[in-house]
Formats: sequence, structure tokens, C-alpha cells
Amino acid sequence: MKRYIRTDLALELKEDLPEQGLIDGVKIFTKNYKDEDIKETVIEVVNKKGEMMLGKPVGTYVTIESKSLREGDDSINKSFMQILHQNLAKMIGKADKILVIGLGNRAITPDSLGPLVIDNLYVTRHLINEGLVKEDKELSALAPGVMAQTGIETSVIIKSVCDKIKPDVVIAIDALAAREPDRLNSTIQICDTGINPGAGVGNNRAKLDKKTLGIKVIAIGVPTVISVPAIVYQSVEGMVNVLRSGRCNDNIEKRGNEKNKNKETGEENGKWIDYEEDERLEHFTDAEKYEIACNLLEPDLAAMFVTPKNIDEAVKKVSYTISEAINGFLNYKRT
Amino acid sequence: MKRYIRTDLALELKEDLPEQGLIDGVKIFTKNYKDEDIKETVIEVVNKKGEMMLGKPVGTYVTIESKSLREGDDSINKSFMQILHQNLAKMIGKADKILVIGLGNRAITPDSLGPLVIDNLYVTRHLINEGLVKEDKELSALAPGVMAQTGIETSVIIKSVCDKIKPDVVIAIDALAAREPDRLNSTIQICDTGINPGAGVGNNRAKLDKKTLGIKVIAIGVPTVISVPAIVYQSVEGMVNVLRSGRCNDNIEKRGNEKNKNKETGEENGKWIDYEEDERLEHFTDAEKYEIACNLLEPDLAAMFVTPKNIDEAVKKVSYTISEAINGFLNYKRT
Amino acid sequence: MKRYIRTDLALELKEDLPEQGLIDGVKIFTKNYKDEDIKETVIEVVNKKGEMMLGKPVGTYVTIESKSLREGDDSINKSFMQILHQNLAKMIGKADKILVIGLGNRAITPDSLGPLVIDNLYVTRHLINEGLVKEDKELSALAPGVMAQTGIETSVIIKSVCDKIKPDVVIAIDALAAREPDRLNSTIQICDTGINPGAGVGNNRAKLDKKTLGIKVIAIGVPTVISVPAIVYQSVEGMVNVLRSGRCNDNIEKRGNEKNKNKETGEENGKWIDYEEDERLEHFTDAEKYEIACNLLEPDLAAMFVTPKNIDEAVKKVSYTISEAINGFLNYKRT
Amino acid sequence: MKRYIRTDLALELKEDLPEQGLIDGVKIFTKNYKDEDIKETVIEVVNKKGEMMLGKPVGTYVTIESKSLREGDDSINKSFMQILHQNLAKMIGKADKILVIGLGNRAITPDSLGPLVIDNLYVTRHLINEGLVKEDKELSALAPGVMAQTGIETSVIIKSVCDKIKPDVVIAIDALAAREPDRLNSTIQICDTGINPGAGVGNNRAKLDKKTLGIKVIAIGVPTVISVPAIVYQSVEGMVNVLRSGRCNDNIEKRGNEKNKNKETGEENGKWIDYEEDERLEHFTDAEKYEIACNLLEPDLAAMFVTPKNIDEAVKKVSYTISEAINGFLNYKRT
Repeated sequence: MKRYIRTDLALELKEDLPEQGLIDGVKIFTKNYKDEDIKETVIEVVNKKGEMMLGKPVGTYVTIESKSLREGDDSINKSFMQILHQNLAKMIGKADKILVIGLGNRAITPDSLGPLVIDNLYVTRHLINEGLVKEDKELSALAPGVMAQTGIETSVIIKSVCDKIKPDVVIAIDALAAREPDRLNSTIQICDTGINPGAGVGNNRAKLDKKTLGIKVIAIGVPTVISVPAIVYQSVEGMVNVLRSGRCNDNIEKRGNEKNKNKETGEENGKWIDYEEDERLEHFTDAEKYEIACNLLEPDLAAMFVTPKNIDEAVKKVSYTISEAINGFLNYKRT
Repeated sequence: MKRYIRTDLALELKEDLPEQGLIDGVKIFTKNYKDEDIKETVIEVVNKKGEMMLGKPVGTYVTIESKSLREGDDSINKSFMQILHQNLAKMIGKADKILVIGLGNRAITPDSLGPLVIDNLYVTRHLINEGLVKEDKELSALAPGVMAQTGIETSVIIKSVCDKIKPDVVIAIDALAAREPDRLNSTIQICDTGINPGAGVGNNRAKLDKKTLGIKVIAIGVPTVISVPAIVYQSVEGMVNVLRSGRCNDNIEKRGNEKNKNKETGEENGKWIDYEEDERLEHFTDAEKYEIACNLLEPDLAAMFVTPKNIDEAVKKVSYTISEAINGFLNYKRT
Repeated sequence: MKRYIRTDLALELKEDLPEQGLIDGVKIFTKNYKDEDIKETVIEVVNKKGEMMLGKPVGTYVTIESKSLREGDDSINKSFMQILHQNLAKMIGKADKILVIGLGNRAITPDSLGPLVIDNLYVTRHLINEGLVKEDKELSALAPGVMAQTGIETSVIIKSVCDKIKPDVVIAIDALAAREPDRLNSTIQICDTGINPGAGVGNNRAKLDKKTLGIKVIAIGVPTVISVPAIVYQSVEGMVNVLRSGRCNDNIEKRGNEKNKNKETGEENGKWIDYEEDERLEHFTDAEKYEIACNLLEPDLAAMFVTPKNIDEAVKKVSYTISEAINGFLNYKRT
Repeated sequence: MKRYIRTDLALELKEDLPEQGLIDGVKIFTKNYKDEDIKETVIEVVNKKGEMMLGKPVGTYVTIESKSLREGDDSINKSFMQILHQNLAKMIGKADKILVIGLGNRAITPDSLGPLVIDNLYVTRHLINEGLVKEDKELSALAPGVMAQTGIETSVIIKSVCDKIKPDVVIAIDALAAREPDRLNSTIQICDTGINPGAGVGNNRAKLDKKTLGIKVIAIGVPTVISVPAIVYQSVEGMVNVLRSGRCNDNIEKRGNEKNKNKETGEENGKWIDYEEDERLEHFTDAEKYEIACNLLEPDLAAMFVTPKNIDEAVKKVSYTISEAINGFLNYKRT
């Protein structure tokens, strides 16, 4: 169990579940689109028991994964976009007036996903209201900024506008944090339960859901960062494993770069780790490992994050895919 | 009278007034800060008669001008900033809760002034609400985007948020259109009457004033573009003057700027234009000249504007000056 | 003849030619790709006589036009891109080592086309040199900046690098000026004669051709601005036509676009212009009209340009199309 | 000794030195500018012995530190800028023709420092050559891009241009990696020994120094990232310290957040670590710790870095300070 490490992905939380946990609270379906190397996982939390197991409210969490999302040489990934569109269409159902909210801070690259999606939407609400176009679905959009930019709780801005323009459904887009580096910018999560506090790159405290807004909230999230504690936790865990296996020296030898090998110590496993010690190290619980990780961090690191070097380009690419999946609700795009 | 040419500057409208118009409807005060080469003009529209004369509602319009605004080699112009701050302070008076609205479209350089100002504000509303800082004035901010981006009338978003957070005063910042090229990015206009529809680079139709928001609205505007019809009007007007003076050939030779010189000299000033013709050309009214200008334009030009080559840099520079003038309301900035 | 108005497009220069000029100096072929609403014009200047007629050196000038270039809702226009690629392929021939130069100033939106194209190229020179990939064509790229940014003649930087890395061909990309508003961001010109001085948005004085670099130079240009004198010239010309036709009042009423209709109708077309005057106005030569236009301009306008409101988005879209056309030379893109 | 952890700062390398190492190879002077909270450290490597001790070539390394560099509320920090200018002036001496090179990749925020500095320089070389201004020092500038953008070794581009325009001195600006989080964007290092390979955010392999360019190279570097291995090394080191001290549980208790405390284990040091183990753990050498850290990392993490959330803003601020320090060599700035 890695529950102590921050992740916003239901998919990663699922990995912490014991086998039996899945039986009657959480249902999981997976589907592989082989030609496109795209994987879709649907996690359904069906009752309170599932909520407790997974740590996420009752609802549907769809994860679509493909490295091609960030790596494709075209500017958008059409197959991925269509799978995303179909899943959105299923969750939106018959709702006609869609308000898209781009959460996050445009000035912080890995947090700029939401505003970038808004930049490429074809909004139609004003055109429909003025009788200039005919569409089944009506799109409007807002990138409200984050509280550090506005001084106003993001949820307050969104609720104000919702109360006035009364959309049928809100789609909220945000950058998320993941645990696993290879999920960054390659995974999109959609869920119908809104966005929980504390998500994303910033400390976005807005709770946006049916309860707070009075409107169904579909959240689209993409992990763009890993928190520094998550990295350190993994290294502490790795360290514990190294110590536990008593194979540190071997490990070092294999990479061929060691400088201070104590060749004279005849023992198989190195002189300094023996079986008894291993026994003791097993007593590190996950909680302890997490606490160690946090204690190891200098306070300055709290304001930092780990992100890929190509984050600027990757976020743009992913944002285009999401924009086009939403623009897919417009008739004129289909003809 | 050039009233047919679009300008958002009271200062330029004033130039159209006949001398006597100023007597009892519009009062004008000017002040030169010689050391800094800054000029301040206060235009007060005092009654209905003034409104009709100037074409602007009753209120105070302060214009601060200096080429150093766009040209200074430091990133902000401190003297200009302080004069701007003092004028803002006068208009704001005892209002404590200030909501700053950055109007305009961030993706169109000459229209990005408002959002850029917001980017550099030190908002404090959330910090004060959480008891983290003490300030006399409370700053919050919003860059709502334009209707083409959101599908929502900008005024609807702003009114929604105002109704919820109830500021004492709104400061709205927008890019304007001027007539005179040398006013671009060198002039800031502040007024206490809000922002009228149709202003700015975009077709921002939001009427933001005391009447629509229920809150006093102070507008800060900076001309960043000239409309194509304004340029063409000027050239038509110039053409008419050339014909009228009958000195086209001389003009070409000397590149002088004279307009009505030497009417009495008759035929020797050009082989092809004589005195009688001049008489007839005087029949062009301003309305006709404007109509000619509009007829001359190809429809594609309607979606274009005239802007300086260095607009990206100039808009950033001006936005810093405005941000700092507003940040000047915070105590921690003064100590 | 409009030869006094600045244009960088051979296509617009061609419009100035008298019919007979085409006979033995300039050859023109046009082709319409009907499904895609794309028009291709090939202008071949075959000898000195053609050079004098067109004002462009001996060589081939291909113009590809389509409004879909700037307006398509996908991020790139595939058909346009393929036609562009085929034309480039023809000009490049068997040259294998390609150096792409992105001319222009990244900080001035309409001048940023060249650097933006470079941003999206897949350069391979270093990978091929290190034996990491195999390709028939080798791509390298440079965005040298403009002289106002570097203090160095752009041609000096490019020649220095060419002398060192010895490419077989240089592709130089630059923003151009056009006369006609509807050509902005909808037209791409390719030629095999290099880039002439004075082209583009900035005062790019670099002469880049076989003679200066010792290497064949293919230029790709896209008009992104119209100069202010071009706009004013057009309005002066329009004014002269209005006066000449003596139909100003009617014009205002009907908003027609007619130019020389009904000269014989005399007085009834307007109270203030009669036939004699018309005679005299015909004495305006093109040179005089251009001089008038320049005299009409305030000096500040010289540093300005006319550009569409959506220039930021349009330049990005066009740059992607060009990048992909060049990336098309890589094998891995074709498989 | 932490020599295995990547740092580009002589200041951090110095911390690894044993006391006696300083005696005859490396000289260190420090100066505190108290009013401004700025610290200046001059490290002089005087001979081969010093080179071996510090791992940096013979020369002078000046480090200027102040948190105000990244945090000041004005857009530039004037005191810091002046101290930087004075140090540059000392190193440049009588050299008159200065070529400033902005290394790094503009599209990767923490690597964009060099290009951003170039953006704000007042280059004069072309103006002086044309006789338009008179200056003692002549500035030119180039932001060549990185090899992944150009396909060309950065050093090849720079050497080509240097051979042509023959500057007296090159100032090369680059983003660096540090070990300590609180040094990010708060420290500027200047040295007169050029830039060593492997520095910076990207894998900039350009060796730029007197030997390769034939011209003195002054390097200005600012740490903007910490490598992921550096973070993990620190956590491994912390982990070893925790194990060594046998005080893991205490540590957890002090932060008051512990979940699985085993209160019943009476022993001082926790039940699972005893003295003998401690003995053995001391045998971890630095090399072993670094190897462990590298082994712990997933391959995906190699392409990532750790950076502050406000990196976009911080890099801009620092770049302005450096630009202004270099612009300080122009006369017109001083009058």
C-alpha cells in the first residue's frame, strides 16, 4: 500500500487495493485499443464500501492511457481524442448547455492545462443566443485563474457565473499529480463526481461538484507533475528494499562504477547487512516510510515539483486533444 | 470636427470642440511635470450640456501623457506611475475593497493590456480574509476574457462576481483606440464614469458602470491601436487639403506640411488645379469625408488594425506601470 | 500600375504587368485543386527582359493560395501542406543536407513566422552525425534573430554557419508584406532565387542567395502585414477615382465599387464636380499618387503596420503547415 | 563530501573541501552587503592543486547571493544588479567589443534564462558600425538555441560567428543545476574560465572557453533546477543518517503526525535498530550512496527535473537583472 503518497488518479489508488476489496464496492473494466496502443480503464465506485476502499466518492472514473498522447508527431492524437469524446458524451448524456472551466494558473507551465484547453474551444453560447448558429449543444467557457492571482476562491467565481447563466453541466479541466513518472502527460482521467479539494499543481481548494454548484460536474484531469515527497518516498522505499534484500553491493557492482568496493570482505552479501537486520527492516510500515520521506525534505522543496523537461510542449499537445474532444460536440465540426 | 473618427480618448474628442463649447459644460485643467516630461489633462464634464458637447457622460477624465511611458529604458516609469497612483487615489477615495478587472483578449497582443496588468497585481483579499495580513485596502482581481473566448457577455461574469464578493469599487482596465499615432502606448486615461460599450480593440460590448454593476467603476484605458478607417480618413482629409490648397506638385517637391497657405497666388501653384475647383472641394463635409473613407476600404480591412511594430514590448511596459500604480495601495509596498 | 506600392509577392507584381509583357520574359501557369479550394500559380522569370518586367530575378516563383490556410479548424491543413511539400521537393531536387533558416523577430507577432517554423522542425543533423538515425535528407535549423536584436547583420550569421557546416541547400522562411488584405496568412510563396533585401515586416537587409552564400537558397514567404503607405495609397487612389468619376454622392448612397463608369454623363452625377475638373485630375500619375500618400502620413505611422486581429493564431497555424511540409522530408515521418 | 552530486556552483563544490584544501590552491573571500542582504563570495583557483581540489579550472568564481533576487517586488533588483555589473566590469577590463551569448532552450522554462537575457539587451554593434551612436563598449548578442533545436553543436555556431565578427570577449549566460533548493534563482555565479561541458538544464555539450573560441569567455550562470538524482541522493543520505542515529521513531514523533507509533517498545532508540547495525551502516561511502540513488530511479525520471512552482516568474526577474547589469556598459544608460 502506497496510500500515503499523493496521487489524484483513481487508477493509482486502485493499485493499493487488496484483491478482495474489488469484490463488492469497486468494479473495474479494461479495454485495449490495440491498433492505437491506447488503454481504457473504467473504475466504478458503486457504494459506501467502495468509497472507503478507494478513497474516492461513488461514481465513474475513466482513465485513458497512451504514450502517444505526449509523443505523437502530429499536433493532436485523433484516436485518443475520439475515445475521450465518446466517454465525455456518455457522461454528459442529454445535457445541452455545457460550461467548460479551465482550472489552474496559466503562468505555471504544468498548471496551465485548463486555461490552454479554453484557448482552443469554439464557444457558441453567444452565437446561439443571437440566433447566428444552430447547435444541439451550447458551449461556454471560463478560465477563472487561481486564488493566488484573483484573491477570490475559485469556486466562488464559478458558482457566481453558474447561478447566472445556468448551464446543464460543468466540465472542469485541471492538471493533476501522479505517483508514476511514466503517467505524466500520457493519461487522461474523466470522472462524473467533480473535483476534490487539494488537487492539481497549485493548492486549488475549490470543491466543485453537484453539491456545491447544484449542477453535475464532470472533471477531466491530466497528471503533469509528481510531488517531491512522492519521489523521495519512492527512493526511501527503494532504499528499504535494497537493505532488505541485502544486495546493495551487488547492485553497485553491476553498474560498474563503484569506487570504494571493499573487496576483502568475503561474504556473499557484503559485510554490513545480514539476515537479522533484514528482519528488523521489515518493521518499517508505509506510514513510517512516508514520515521518513517528509522528514528528509528541506522546507524549500515543499514549493517545488518534479516535471518532465518537455513539459511546455507536452501540456500544449494534451490540451489540443482535450479541446478537440470537447469541440466534437458541435455540429459544424462533424460536417 | 473629426467626430466621425473613432476615438476612446476624451482628450481627442475635446479637440473637436468649438472654443465656446468649453464655457459652461466642460472644464479643462492642464499641468506639466517638466522634469519628467509628463503632461496631465483633467477634463470635467459638469452637466448635460457638456455631455452633448463632448459625447461623454458627466464625470472626470484624467489623461496622463509621456512618450517615456513606452520608451523608458527601465522596465517601469516611476514618476508616471506615481502621478497615476495619485489620480487613482483621488477617485477611489475611502473605498476599501477594490476589485480590478482586466478586460480584453490575452491572445491578441494590443488587446492584452488588461490581463497583463492582472498578472502583476499583489492580490490580498484572500490573505486578509484568512487573517494573514493587515491592509487598509483589499485587492482582488479578475481577467474574465472576452465574449469570443467565453460565449458569455463579459458584463454578466463581472456582475455575477461583484454580487457575490461585493467590492466597494471596481477598477476596469482596457486597451483603447486613438486617432493620433503618437498617443499609442504613451497615454493613460482614467475616468470615474465606467467603460462605455464598443471600446477597445475587440468589440467589447460590456457596459460597466455604477448603473449596471451597482458599484462605482473607475476605468483605466490606454490606446494601443488606431482603426484602419481612422488612418484612411486622415489620408482622405489630407488629400482634400492638398486639392484645396492646389499645391500638390509643390508638396511633392518640398514635402512640406502646409495646409492652406497662399490661396491668393492662383494658377502658378500647379498646372492642374485652379481657384474655382478649390471652391467646389470645400463642399466636402466631414460626414462625406468619412463616408468616402469607409467606401474606400475593402471589407477584409474591417478586421484589421494599425499598431506599432514594438507593440508586444510597449504593452508589457505600460502594463507594469499600471500594475505598480495599483499595487501602491498596499501598505507593505510603501514601507 | 501599382508598382510604387510595396509588395513581396511576385503574384501581386504580375498584376501590374501589361498583357504583352508576359509574352517572352515571364511565363505563368495556374492550377486549381478544386476539392480543397487551393490555387497554385507558377511564375517563371526566364530572362533579363522578364526580370525588368516583373522586378524579380530570373527563377521560379510558386504561389499557393487558400483561405483555409488561416481558417481551417484543424491545427494544420494537410492538403495545402502536401502541395507545399511537393513544390519544395521539386526545387530541392537531390540536395541532401538542408539548413532551414527562420528569419524574423520572435517578439513581434507578424514577424515571428520564421522562428515559429523552426520551433516545430524535427532536426536530424546531429542524430545522423552520431549514427543514431538513418535518413536520406539531413535537417538542421537556425533562428538567428534580427539585427535589432543581435547587432549583427543576419546574413553574416548565416554565412558564418553555412561556411562551417556546408549544407547543400538553404530554406529561408520569412514574413512578407502584401498589398491585398485577403492575401494575409492565406498565401505561401516559394521561390528558388533567395530572399531580396528589404523584405518582410522588419527591415531585414540580409541578401540571402546563391551569390552571397555560395549555396542555393529557397525562400518560403507568407504575407502577414500590409504597410500603412499601401493602405493610404489605396485610399488616395480610391479618392482620385471618386473625384474622376464625379460620383461621390451617388457612391455614398449606393456603396458601389465602380471606378470609371459613366464618364460621359456629366453634371447630373454630383453637384460639385464637373467634367473639366475630371480632365485635370487625370494628370495624377502613379508616382504623384504615391508621393501624396507618403506626404499624408505622419512620421509616427512609418513604424506601424496593418495586421489582422487574429494574427497570433493565424501565424501559428501557417507555421505548423510549413513545419510539417519540411518535416515531410524525413523518412520516419512517411512510415 | 558530496562530490558525486551534480552541481555547477563552485560555491557548492567548495563545501565539499576539507579545511586544509583551502590553504594553497583555493582562495576564498566573502563580503556582506548588509543593507541589501546580499552576499558576495569570491573563489580563486590559483594553481593545479586548486583545480584538483575544487574540480574547476584555474580562474575566478564570483557568487552573488540574495533571496531578494527572486522575491523583490520591483521588477529588477538594483543593488544586486550594480554588484553584478561591477564584478563583470572587473573581469571584462579593457575589452571593448562584447558578444553576449544566451545559451539554453527558450521553450523549456528553467532553461530559458539565456535567451530571455538577450531579449532585453540594448545591442549597439550595428549602430556603432553605421556611425549612429558613440559608445566605449560595443554590444552584440546571439541566442543560438540548443542542439536538439538546431541539429548543430552550439559551440560550432558560436565559433563561426566569433571568427567572423571578432569580439574581444564573450559573455555566455546559462541556466545551471544546484544541489541546494534555496539557491535556485537566488544566486548568480560569474567566472572567467568559460562554460564547461554538461552544464545547465539541457545537455549542453558546448565547451566555450579561451581555448575553443580563441577569445576570453566570461560565464554568468544561475541555478534554476535541481536534478532528480540530487534530490534522491539527499533523501538516501538522510535515510542513512536516520538509520545511523537510530532515531527514526523520535523523528516521527517530533513532527506529531505519526500514525503507527509503537509506544510499547520501551527502548530509547526504537525496537528495530540497534547499535551493531549502526556500525555497519557507517560503511556506506558517498560513492555507494550515489550509486544507490541512481539505482533507485526509474528511467523516466532521468528526463525530469525539480523546479520551483514560480519558475516562470523567477526566471524572468533574474533575466532582467542580468540584462540591466550588461546594459550598464552603455554610456547612454549612465547619463
